[in-house]
Amino acid sequence: MPGGPAIAIHAGAGSRTPETAEQAGAIADALRQAVEGARELLEADAPAHEAAIQAVTVLEDFPLFNAGCGAALCSDGTAELSASLMRGEDRAAGAVAGLHRVRNPILAAGLLLDSEQVLMIGEPADARAAEAGLETVENDYFITEHQRRARRGESRIGEHGTVGAVCLDTGGGLAAATSTGGIAGQPPGRVGDSPLLGAGTWADSAVAVSCTGDGEAFIRVGVARAIAARHERGLEEAARTALAEVEALGASGGLIALDREGNIALPFLTQAMPRGQWRAGEKIWIWPA
Amino acid sequence: MPGGPAIAIHAGAGSRTPETAEQAGAIADALRQAVEGARELLEADAPAHEAAIQAVTVLEDFPLFNAGCGAALCSDGTAELSASLMRGEDRAAGAVAGLHRVRNPILAAGLLLDSEQVLMIGEPADARAAEAGLETVENDYFITEHQRRARRGESRIGEHGTVGAVCLDTGGGLAAATSTGGIAGQPPGRVGDSPLLGAGTWADSAVAVSCTGDGEAFIRVGVARAIAARHERGLEEAARTALAEVEALGASGGLIALDREGNIALPFLTQAMPRGQWRAGEKIWIWPA
Repeated sequence: MPGGPAIAIHAGAGSRTPETAEQAGAIADALRQAVEGARELLEADAPAHEAAIQAVTVLEDFPLFNAGCGAALCSDGTAELSASLMRGEDRAAGAVAGLHRVRNPILAAGLLLDSEQVLMIGEPADARAAEAGLETVENDYFITEHQRRARRGESRIGEHGTVGAVCLDTGGGLAAATSTGGIAGQPPGRVGDSPLLGAGTWADSAVAVSCTGDGEAFIRVGVARAIAARHERGLEEAARTALAEVEALGASGGLIALDREGNIALPFLTQAMPRGQWRAGEKIWIWPA
Repeated sequence: MPGGPAIAIHAGAGSRTPETAEQAGAIADALRQAVEGARELLEADAPAHEAAIQAVTVLEDFPLFNAGCGAALCSDGTAELSASLMRGEDRAAGAVAGLHRVRNPILAAGLLLDSEQVLMIGEPADARAAEAGLETVENDYFITEHQRRARRGESRIGEHGTVGAVCLDTGGGLAAATSTGGIAGQPPGRVGDSPLLGAGTWADSAVAVSCTGDGEAFIRVGVARAIAARHERGLEEAARTALAEVEALGASGGLIALDREGNIALPFLTQAMPRGQWRAGEKIWIWPA
């Protein structure tokens, strides 16, 4: 029996904790706003993928998370953005990597959901989103002072901070969405797990997953797809088993997973992972609160 | 008990059959050369990933397959190349997408195998391979008359023809490699399953898989990772179950899979899939012969 509607979000598994009480408050506000926006849509019977897009858009716009505005910077000082989205009921998917000018990468991924393509990269992906009417910005829009400091090694904020959402709608449909700026100081052209279905993002009729962490290890484990393949053992067990494989590669991270019964798992190997969740009949829960 | 050494290769699942006897003979020669080159290495105790790279390099250089020279052309008439490689024993992986000038994309993927990055895209991926000393060519090098005809709809050769190899070495190590030019007429920037670990390519300590077919469906099913997750049911069964999921999405293709015991599965949903295999103590088998 479907247990929806429900939502879980994350804003990256990392070693960082907020540097000031003001920062912690702003992070809590952004998380709450993301969950509330998705909840409103789900309560109005919107499909899960629309709620996931809504939540991730809020997280992309918040400058202290490493996605959209606030993205980590490549070694050449530019921001390169990636995102992906998957709708569980028909496994439709859209993903983009190496964007430089679409303001909200998750919207560019969403455009591909019902297209012939699943994954588009680089300038053609930017151009296609622009032609479809999505807002574009100068690359400077994404670049924040704290990411400039992170690139110089002066701040650990922004080291991680990939964002994601998993949603279950009133019809029992699942969706997952993930968006990132990558790793601070990464070479231009490097792509992690976030835009890769099966690695950083997955949704099918049973489970939805969004990951964060050391992207290369998440690709090498195929974390999101592995959880889906093993979900019958229980969501928490499947999620922890996949994370243990990441750890066995000497890497770290976390994830959010949601199944059709409304079970939620939010495991992480790091010191902290800003996150939130809501289920029908429950209050919104977020950390940091 | 490891059953190696062994190798299987494919050159794309498609509707095409060779247009002439001369073409069929040339295809058979290329397949045989690819298997023989890999066999020589494996018999000399080379690691599986070196044999897989060797086989795919031969297939990339053969102009009637859609990878390297002979790649399918994008809608703008350019060739964009993708490849990936995974080594099972430590799940190390390398992948490239959107290359325009590295002669052998599988070698560019191989360069990343022991680097910090797994997936590199676009011009930075080309530049990194060139800096490491890989041969670069003008984009025209990849473009063949039969692919010009395919883009104009005058030939079905080149519609498919992604190439791949899976190898098991004398130490029991597995590897998988895949290389492609994508789909004839695809928009520039489109990426299919071939460079995506878990979708088109996968290797771990138990199984190695390389796929070919409608790339978007292979991504949406997570074919290669799904087979690995289910291989305990038997390789053939796991492979056929994953292909059935592709078929359920209205799509088609095929794959090659090899396990640690030396079992080989070469299923395909299409009319034809050029392929070959060899195991210790057996003769080389190829189709078309």
